[in-house]
Amino acid sequence: MKNIIYVVTMKKESVGSVETKFFNMDKDLKLESGKILKDVTIAYETYGKLNKEKNNAILVCHALSGDAHAAGWHYEDKKPGWWEILIGPGKALDSEKYFIISSNILGGCSGSTGPSSINPATSKTYNLDFPVITIKDMVKAQKKLVENLNIDKLLAVVGGSMGGMQVLQWIVSYPDMVKKAIPIATTAHSSPQQIAFNEVGRQAIITDSHWNNGDYYDKEIGPRNGLALARMIAHITYLSDESMYEKFGRDLKDKKEVSYDFSMDFQVESYLHYQGDAFVKRFDANSYLYITKAIDYFDLSSNGSLIEGFKNIKSKVQVIAIDSDWLYPPDQSKDILMALNANSVDVSYAELKSTYGHDAFLLEGGQLNYVVANFLTNTLAEDLMDENVSTIKKDMELKDVAMLMMSDYVTHLPVVNEDNRLLGIVTAWDLSKSIALNCSSLDEIMTKNVITCKSDETIDSISRKMRENDISCLPVVDDDFKIEGIITTDQISHLLSD
Amino acid sequence: MKNIIYVVTMKKESVGSVETKFFNMDKDLKLESGKILKDVTIAYETYGKLNKEKNNAILVCHALSGDAHAAGWHYEDKKPGWWEILIGPGKALDSEKYFIISSNILGGCSGSTGPSSINPATSKTYNLDFPVITIKDMVKAQKKLVENLNIDKLLAVVGGSMGGMQVLQWIVSYPDMVKKAIPIATTAHSSPQQIAFNEVGRQAIITDSHWNNGDYYDKEIGPRNGLALARMIAHITYLSDESMYEKFGRDLKDKKEVSYDFSMDFQVESYLHYQGDAFVKRFDANSYLYITKAIDYFDLSSNGSLIEGFKNIKSKVQVIAIDSDWLYPPDQSKDILMALNANSVDVSYAELKSTYGHDAFLLEGGQLNYVVANFLTNTLAEDLMDENVSTIKKDMELKDVAMLMMSDYVTHLPVVNEDNRLLGIVTAWDLSKSIALNCSSLDEIMTKNVITCKSDETIDSISRKMRENDISCLPVVDDDFKIEGIITTDQISHLLSD
Repeated sequence: MKNIIYVVTMKKESVGSVETKFFNMDKDLKLESGKILKDVTIAYETYGKLNKEKNNAILVCHALSGDAHAAGWHYEDKKPGWWEILIGPGKALDSEKYFIISSNILGGCSGSTGPSSINPATSKTYNLDFPVITIKDMVKAQKKLVENLNIDKLLAVVGGSMGGMQVLQWIVSYPDMVKKAIPIATTAHSSPQQIAFNEVGRQAIITDSHWNNGDYYDKEIGPRNGLALARMIAHITYLSDESMYEKFGRDLKDKKEVSYDFSMDFQVESYLHYQGDAFVKRFDANSYLYITKAIDYFDLSSNGSLIEGFKNIKSKVQVIAIDSDWLYPPDQSKDILMALNANSVDVSYAELKSTYGHDAFLLEGGQLNYVVANFLTNTLAEDLMDENVSTIKKDMELKDVAMLMMSDYVTHLPVVNEDNRLLGIVTAWDLSKSIALNCSSLDEIMTKNVITCKSDETIDSISRKMRENDISCLPVVDDDFKIEGIITTDQISHLLSD
Repeated sequence: MKNIIYVVTMKKESVGSVETKFFNMDKDLKLESGKILKDVTIAYETYGKLNKEKNNAILVCHALSGDAHAAGWHYEDKKPGWWEILIGPGKALDSEKYFIISSNILGGCSGSTGPSSINPATSKTYNLDFPVITIKDMVKAQKKLVENLNIDKLLAVVGGSMGGMQVLQWIVSYPDMVKKAIPIATTAHSSPQQIAFNEVGRQAIITDSHWNNGDYYDKEIGPRNGLALARMIAHITYLSDESMYEKFGRDLKDKKEVSYDFSMDFQVESYLHYQGDAFVKRFDANSYLYITKAIDYFDLSSNGSLIEGFKNIKSKVQVIAIDSDWLYPPDQSKDILMALNANSVDVSYAELKSTYGHDAFLLEGGQLNYVVANFLTNTLAEDLMDENVSTIKKDMELKDVAMLMMSDYVTHLPVVNEDNRLLGIVTAWDLSKSIALNCSSLDEIMTKNVITCKSDETIDSISRKMRENDISCLPVVDDDFKIEGIITTDQISHLLSD
């Protein structure tokens, strides 16, 4: 627990200046509908460096209105990327430890191919000729991007809301490509209420006369009112009743008495209008239609069974829900938990305490960093152990042992037999003891009942063993007690605080 | 309890054929905003008959989209009035016992004066020249109607949702005019979330180009899309997530696979569109704007305190909430309960168990009938007692007693002294006993330890006394034991089952 608190309280920084990059697929993308998309571009950003083992890559998936710009600052940004609270040096998605990839979804309007892109077949914008896409299609495009970055396996995929749907789709579609998955404030299938809210949002756009059946990109005015209204409706669902009370109460907007007219009387109205207007400046109405449709279609059940739908999942999963989220309520996360449990998937569940409602996945930095960091650093011995172990034989002279310690810069040396089986361990402290006790043989000073661990043991468990036994080093052994590696408290500490 | 079960299981019928009537105010109506409305008309219906004491009138208040037609059938109706489950012979709002008044609110579009009415100043429709009205104004207009019906005091006011707001406004504005109040699934002040949902509904209408700043009554097309969308949004808030699952799940509409286009895929979408389209046929967009604004303005707090706002309430109150209602959640009803309790108002709270969400106040007939009937029939002795009591003196001949019983058609005769103080009671059965035992004096056969009740005792309590003592008649006495009236099981039975 001490280590974890350390993670949360250590200094958190921004990834700093970043730029969006673009991945152009050289092959066609076949969609779930059967249709083919040509010349697909996926906009993405990366933070941190891919290590030489290429095993520290984490994919971040965004929600309905997100984009590739998850962290750091673009030139002239007034605020940083949308998940700045979680991504950066010292944060759970630590850019000094992980290689973080964030891509704009297929169908979006922030650099990836979508309805506002040029259709190569006509050299005009797609408009409604853009094919209907699904969450599965979005994830397929992300997979192409990940492969293009020469990554075979992602350390983790993480995202909230529709981002969480992509996380779940990843571990269903590509079970061997993801070690850990963190779906946040999401569901395994859109509920009728969620579909209903999406449909009224779409209707707001479609009934706006400026929508013009999706053909408005070259017009002076697009479906601004419709898109703003769709956003206003959706925004209500992102907040809890309680957070709205805290934020607005029944406060009036720039007046002392109600106006008895149809101007905005209340702060909450003004806030919603501001949200709607701001959204219109950064989002495309057609993309809104396509993305909400993809959300509606999302259903990971197979033959009506989520347990069956989840049967091939191999990743470890950390499900996170928000107690005040009424759009994707905790019960829907618990359904995911239960279906994963039924498939013996290694899964944990955490519920954030928050009054923010659904939006908490963008706001509750403290709790999110705690849970995500805890889950990501819940590494196995094999992920962390030093495999280049200096070992010694039982008949080695104490002086040579001491010299080896100094030359290899280690404080612990496993003692092994000819077969590399562990016989004992000798420490710098043991050597000091030999001086005090005037011993001359290794056999007299080495610890013979050595506490060990297995390569598939979790760091949590190892850390507990070390604390309980007041030791700072554990040999990792196989079933024959042959030594495979070594783990020290130094390594664990580095993992958490690097 | 036996009586109550009897209420619920007895035969329930419709009030049958009904017609809407119209009350034209001869005086101007001064509104809360300070503006004056001339020539106000209020549409209303009545069910049952006003008794000669004029103390059996119950006012029913409707919700946002309701009208005066709460029960029974209009000529060519395909379904009965909107609260048919609760109003009619044998139901809680028993038209054979009560005189039930249901009026269309001021600002509405179903016969009462509203934005679509003719402005007497211009001889054209009001449109947006109609003044903004409040719940208080609606209730003020209802009061004029009630007075016009020569009713000084209402036995009860009852309503759900915005109807419940009117109920609360009634007992705040006119504390002496309402004996009992039943606010259902409502709040004492609109929350920011409720205001937010109303505002997006209004925006849907206002941004419809056919709204034309409210001037559309003589146009070929009005803001149909906008009004339908407003209704679709609102309709989501009337249902619970659970009821939507039960009703639609993720079922597709007339197809086996999703369509990969923007047609309606899911049943829930089709249902919402149907609700939106149906609403446009019966409701006026401007009225929708005015009524939602009145709901937003509703706040019975005084100086920020609901306790202070409720300080003059004299009525008995039965607060009813619905456990699955997330638009007007039970907590808001409990706030009402607490503020009434703090003012020592006689108040009870009941929470309907339902999966229907807010709509349950229109659907949960069984529970609603039970709670409402129980509360309404929780009458006091004074409400029910027969004050014209035939009494006898102690020295009366048995033969004369028997003749009096027959002429007055009673089975119980209180025996009183010169001051009208109760000395005993004699029954037809006592007279029969005198024959069997050959007694000749009243003193020998009359019951002297008479069980009595007080005028402010509840029928519940009286009914319990009668059952426990196996008696069918209780004299009502004052503190000096002088007789004030008499109550029989026959009367109580009539109250419950007439």
